Amino acid sequence: MAGAIAYISRDTDGVAWNKILTEALGPLDFRTIANGLGKTDDIEVALAWKPEPGLLATFKNLRMIVSLGMGVDHLLADDKLPHVAITRIMDDGLVGQMSEYALYWGLWHHRDIERYAASQRAKKWKPEEFVDTIDRRIGIMGLGSIGQDTSRKFAALGFPTAGWSRTAKTVPGVETFHGRDSLAMFLGRTNILVNVLPLTRETRGLLDKTLFAALPKGSFVINMGRGGHVVDEDLLAALNSGQISGAALDVFNVEPLPPNHPYWAHPKVHITPHMAGYTNPRTASPGVIENIKRLRSGRELIHRVDPKTGY
Amino acid sequence: MAGAIAYISRDTDGVAWNKILTEALGPLDFRTIANGLGKTDDIEVALAWKPEPGLLATFKNLRMIVSLGMGVDHLLADDKLPHVAITRIMDDGLVGQMSEYALYWGLWHHRDIERYAASQRAKKWKPEEFVDTIDRRIGIMGLGSIGQDTSRKFAALGFPTAGWSRTAKTVPGVETFHGRDSLAMFLGRTNILVNVLPLTRETRGLLDKTLFAALPKGSFVINMGRGGHVVDEDLLAALNSGQISGAALDVFNVEPLPPNHPYWAHPKVHITPHMAGYTNPRTASPGVIENIKRLRSGRELIHRVDPKTGY
Repeated sequence: MAGAIAYISRDTDGVAWNKILTEALGPLDFRTIANGLGKTDDIEVALAWKPEPGLLATFKNLRMIVSLGMGVDHLLADDKLPHVAITRIMDDGLVGQMSEYALYWGLWHHRDIERYAASQRAKKWKPEEFVDTIDRRIGIMGLGSIGQDTSRKFAALGFPTAGWSRTAKTVPGVETFHGRDSLAMFLGRTNILVNVLPLTRETRGLLDKTLFAALPKGSFVINMGRGGHVVDEDLLAALNSGQISGAALDVFNVEPLPPNHPYWAHPKVHITPHMAGYTNPRTASPGVIENIKRLRSGRELIHRVDPKTGY
Repeated sequence: MAGAIAYISRDTDGVAWNKILTEALGPLDFRTIANGLGKTDDIEVALAWKPEPGLLATFKNLRMIVSLGMGVDHLLADDKLPHVAITRIMDDGLVGQMSEYALYWGLWHHRDIERYAASQRAKKWKPEEFVDTIDRRIGIMGLGSIGQDTSRKFAALGFPTAGWSRTAKTVPGVETFHGRDSLAMFLGRTNILVNVLPLTRETRGLLDKTLFAALPKGSFVINMGRGGHVVDEDLLAALNSGQISGAALDVFNVEPLPPNHPYWAHPKVHITPHMAGYTNPRTASPGVIENIKRLRSGRELIHRVDPKTGY
């Protein structure tokens, strides 16, 4: 039998992955933290989500790390990460869920749902002024597979939609900006900001007071990237001043969000527990299966991550 | 000068319409209820939303009625409605807004937002089981321009989407059913039901206990058609038994919804004040302008309504 596959996650039990991989690849030596990793020298492939720093370095014969999330910041944060191939899942199901999340909160803000809910509590029939869809400008930071899908879907609803990314990208129907020099221009035309950037040295803390100040007053912020993108004190100050009218946050600098964090009770903050996109074995597994086959037959891997750029 | 145009609505003042029509057609004799209709024999065209029954019959030289909404039930309810051409607005802006409304509430239910909001109030970090998008089946009743747009947009998000209509329709990517005989089959495969039917003799009261019982237990109902489609006691009973898990209602048998109506305080009912789609003069006016020109030059009108079918 080929080397073992280790499933390293404290969030999910790996049962679905074991089943799907076994169906595709035949009998497997599939190990999990909960059931014991056994003799770690046998481990050839690690499917990993937020592994304990240093753990992967103890797998002496490890050949491939598969990030169970689309972001790999959780791996690169490990300064003992072994120098083996890193790949990540590419998961249409997860991408679709992320777009759903952004559309949900974008529509929540666009259609003034909070005011209507308040009117219902007061048993008051009160239509509000509507904002024409063509006057509500969406801005997506990050144009990887998630950002492209999200921006296309907002554009398909008729919202003027722009995307910003580090390097130049083209998305049909979406205005695109790239690089630091164009960031202020992108922000200045944005009413609903959606962050789906990867977390890298360059993007950490990018959502700070300078960025919030560059948005039109009253803009809404949706963060489904990483908590590390946001300077929490700056977001709270921008919410309290009214510069930012509200925020939907799925990711946080510390997760789970600590019980005493001011976000929990802030009336303008909507918290979800890192649920915008779940890795979906149904849609994520084909790429992982393909890569295990490629690894074992000595072919080039797909969905490789460059540790230098961080995605 | 040609005959006068009367703007008959108690919801909006007509200023935007006067401006747009004057820009397109030149100086107009544009009259409103608020400013006085003057000598009504002069009125050639009535733009009307919920006119007082009998009023239009007093316009002796009326040649065309334009419904300011896409539904015309508000006109056909007038048993003195004069026998002149009835046209309705076709409004891409309104259609897009209706789709936004359906998507918003569909995503609200699909992504379990209520539970996450409750967890936030309890300061509890609690991811819920996710339902894969391909397992959440959307059913749209009514496949006119709104139903087609809404169903296409749900399908584009990856939801298995079906539509039901009186006569056979085809919508790419959407499974379609038609006629009473297929209604139970359509309902049986639907988890989120969106009603956008026109209100006619055939459809009044269609959302009754029989229909709710034909949906899988726990289905969610979105009504953006007309209040008259729903038998309120039956919906309340289905909500209270758990057969229907929740309802987003934009339209009601009596509008404004009376202050003592049980919907207001029902924890499973989300009320909005007939705001799902506003007639948007920007997008609705081209068809109206075209019809005024056609009327005045004796050409065939577009967007005609057949009073027999009611749409």
